[in-house]
Amino acid sequence: MTQTYDAWRRFIAGRDPALLESLLADEVVFSAPTYWKPRTGKVTVMIVLMAVTEVLEDFTYHREWIDERDWALEFSARVGDLDLKGIDLVSLDGAGKISGLEVLIRPPNAVAALRAAMEQKLRELQAPLS
Amino acid sequence: MTQTYDAWRRFIAGRDPALLESLLADEVVFSAPTYWKPRTGKVTVMIVLMAVTEVLEDFTYHREWIDERDWALEFSARVGDLDLKGIDLVSLDGAGKISGLEVLIRPPNAVAALRAAMEQKLRELQAPLS
Repeated sequence: MTQTYDAWRRFIAGRDPALLESLLADEVVFSAPTYWKPRTGKVTVMIVLMAVTEVLEDFTYHREWIDERDWALEFSARVGDLDLKGIDLVSLDGAGKISGLEVLIRPPNAVAALRAAMEQKLRELQAPLS
Repeated sequence: MTQTYDAWRRFIAGRDPALLESLLADEVVFSAPTYWKPRTGKVTVMIVLMAVTEVLEDFTYHREWIDERDWALEFSARVGDLDLKGIDLVSLDGAGKISGLEVLIRPPNAVAALRAAMEQKLRELQAPLS
């Protein structure tokens, strides 16, 4: 599990898609700060994570609670000129892959700005496909 | 610190204001899910916590990460007919009193409903004073 943690921190620092791909379980479930319904599946979650790590600026982890296969990682970041605080709740499966990721963010105006920035970023990422 | 944890759980279950008063540091800082600016001071934070524990229905703790003076407590609850997930980040001072409480909630529509319900509840609580 330490190996997964180290690799996750390397992904956050360097945003290497191949590294992210190696970390996620095929049926990983992502619960976003911006809406209720979870998204499932490695490719979908990869796209969301590549986009969100580009949209959030000055992303910094602070306190961390690591309990084997359940982590709570506190972070701060900025979206546009709005500061925000958040928590990544990460769940691992028995093989050490990330099977669940739930993200909570405050305050609401930053969540709304993140949502708008994510929609824009996802349109950019999909443009070459359409 | 275990004593503070047990008392916090008793407060959540029974909503005894005297118990809550005994748990909070005088200069406790509360960071709400609904806005950015923290609120400071025992009386202010007591009013907010008494109101929010009345507004949130079916409040249930799930995973908990306890690291001496820093806790992360995952919860689910309902506001009106909206389900929500949240995290309480609790910080203790050297005397075991709660010196910081930061709450993050998703998704945004539940946060908006919570904000409206809190404004209504705080008006009710203050009505006898005006």
